Amino acid sequence: MAQPKYLSGDVAAINEFIDKFDVFLFDCDGVLWSGEHVFEGVVETLELLRSRGKKTVFVTNNSTKSRPEYKKKFEGLGIPADEDEIFGSAYSSAIYISRILKLAPPKNKVFVIGEAGIEQELTTENIPFIGGTDPSFRRDVTVEDFNGLADGSLLDPEVGCVLVGLDWHINYLKLSHAYQYLRRGAVFLATNVDSTFPMNNNFFPGAGSISVPLVHMTGQEPVALGKPSQAMMDAIEGKFHLDRARTCMVGDRLNTDIKFGIEGRLGGTLAVLTGVNKKEDWEAADAVAVPSFYVDKLSDLRAAAQ
Amino acid sequence: MAQPKYLSGDVAAINEFIDKFDVFLFDCDGVLWSGEHVFEGVVETLELLRSRGKKTVFVTNNSTKSRPEYKKKFEGLGIPADEDEIFGSAYSSAIYISRILKLAPPKNKVFVIGEAGIEQELTTENIPFIGGTDPSFRRDVTVEDFNGLADGSLLDPEVGCVLVGLDWHINYLKLSHAYQYLRRGAVFLATNVDSTFPMNNNFFPGAGSISVPLVHMTGQEPVALGKPSQAMMDAIEGKFHLDRARTCMVGDRLNTDIKFGIEGRLGGTLAVLTGVNKKEDWEAADAVAVPSFYVDKLSDLRAAAQ
Repeated sequence: MAQPKYLSGDVAAINEFIDKFDVFLFDCDGVLWSGEHVFEGVVETLELLRSRGKKTVFVTNNSTKSRPEYKKKFEGLGIPADEDEIFGSAYSSAIYISRILKLAPPKNKVFVIGEAGIEQELTTENIPFIGGTDPSFRRDVTVEDFNGLADGSLLDPEVGCVLVGLDWHINYLKLSHAYQYLRRGAVFLATNVDSTFPMNNNFFPGAGSISVPLVHMTGQEPVALGKPSQAMMDAIEGKFHLDRARTCMVGDRLNTDIKFGIEGRLGGTLAVLTGVNKKEDWEAADAVAVPSFYVDKLSDLRAAAQ
Repeated sequence: MAQPKYLSGDVAAINEFIDKFDVFLFDCDGVLWSGEHVFEGVVETLELLRSRGKKTVFVTNNSTKSRPEYKKKFEGLGIPADEDEIFGSAYSSAIYISRILKLAPPKNKVFVIGEAGIEQELTTENIPFIGGTDPSFRRDVTVEDFNGLADGSLLDPEVGCVLVGLDWHINYLKLSHAYQYLRRGAVFLATNVDSTFPMNNNFFPGAGSISVPLVHMTGQEPVALGKPSQAMMDAIEGKFHLDRARTCMVGDRLNTDIKFGIEGRLGGTLAVLTGVNKKEDWEAADAVAVPSFYVDKLSDLRAAAQ
C-alpha cells in the first residue's frame, strides 16, 4: 500500500495539506489530549485552521460524556468548542436507537452498561433505559441476584436492547444482567469497541474491553456505533452536510480513526503519533489501515502559520 | 467422527461401561449439581461406583474454592468426598506456579483476580500474592489510581505473574492493575477459561469472561491451568498414579471436559446432558470434541445396580 506523506517540518506540504480540505474531523483522546493533559500547541492549531476558514468537528468514541459535558471538558481544558461541533458515540448510539432501531413497546427499554453520558443522550432522544449509573446496579452480586436472574424474575420484560459503553463501575452484576437480556433476544449495541482508552500517556480498559465478556459468552458481536462504524459517518454527514472529498479525518488509531476515514471515502486521513499507533503499525504488512498523511503531533501543523 | 454410545436405560451397556474403568474423573458444576441444587440420584450413583471398587476424583475448573472449602461444599450438599479426591483449578494453578514457573525474587509475587479459593491454594504453596479479596481492590477507580497506574507508582515491582480466575467482585480497578502488570511483562495465567459458569439451571459469566478483557487489551492468551489444559491432567496423573487407559472423564462441556479426556488419551469420556452442551453440539460438523459415551443424566448409571 502507498505509504503516508510525512508533514512535520515541511511548511509547503503542510500548506498544501490544509488547502485540500474544508472540514477536519478530529479524534480527541490521543490527538488533542491524553486524560486531563492537553498537548502543547493544540489550541493554537485549531485557531489556525479556523482562521483559514476550516470547519472543525470533534468525533469521539468516548461515551462517558454527553455533548454538553464534552463542551464543559473542552472549556475546562481551555479549548474553544461549540456543543454543535461535538459528535460522541453516546449521541451516535441514541440517534441509532431512536431513528434506525425504532424499538416499539412493550420491548423498547435499553439496558445500559456505561456512564452518565449515555444516559443523557438517551434522555434527549426520549429513550427509556435502566442500568447505567443507577446505584442499585453498582454493588456486589448476591444469592438473591443469582436466583432472580436465573429464573428471570429480576429481569425487566420491557428491555429489548443492551447498550454497552465504557463503564468505570463495571461489575459482575451488570454483566450478568446484560447476558440474560441478550440470551432472551435483546439487540446488542456498543457505543464503540476500542480495546483500550488512552489516559495520562498510558492505556486503560476501553469500551471494547467492557463488552468483550458478553461477546465471549454469547458468541454475538455488537453493532458498534462509534468509529470506524459507518453509521457514525452517515450521521455526521447528515448533520454537517460535509463534502466527503473535502473532509479529512485526524486521529491516532488506525483501526478506528484512520479506518473510519478511509471506509467513509473521505478526501484524506491524518495520523498523529501522540496516541495508540506508531509508524511501524501502518508499515506492517498486515496494517489494518494506512493514513494518507502523518505528523509527529497535531501542533506540527502550526508551521503553516510561519 | 464416530458418534458416542447412548447408555441411558441400557443396563447391559452401563455395566460394560463401568467395568471398562478403574477411575472416574468427574466435573462438578453441571454434572453433580447446578449452583446449590444437587441433581437427584448423584449420591447413590457415586456410592454405586465406589461399591464396585472405582476411584472417584472431582476435577473442577471452579477456582473460587480451595480443596478444604470444596470438601465443605460437598458435605453441605450431602455428597461424601475426601479432600484428597478433589482437584480444582486454583490448586492446579498454585502447583504450576510453585513447581513449573518457579518465580524467583525480586519478581515472585502474583497479582490475583479471583476469590478466596485461589488465595488459600497459593498460601498452601507459600506463594506471595496481592489483589484477590483484599478490600483495597474492591472499590471504584479514582483519579489517583489513574495517575498512579499510568506512572507506575502504584504498582508493586515484585509482581511477576497475573493469575485470573472467576471473580464475583471484578471491577475496573483490578482490570487496570492486571493490564499494567501484563504490559510490564508479567506472566499471564488463568485458572480456567470457561466463558460461562452454570448455576441455578442457567449461566453466569465464567472465569474466561473475566480474563477476556485482558486478552483483548494485550493480544496475549493466558496459560490456562484448568480443563482442558493438559498441565492439569499431568498433575492429576502424578497425584493419583492412574492408568489413563482405565480412566474415564465425565463432564457436561465438550470444549473443557470432553476435550480434556480425549487430549489426555483417557480410555473413555462420558457426556451428561445436565449442563452446557447438548447432543446437537457433538453432532455438529465442527464439534470441538465428541464423547465416547453419553447419558441424559449421571444418575442414569444407577440402572446398573438393578
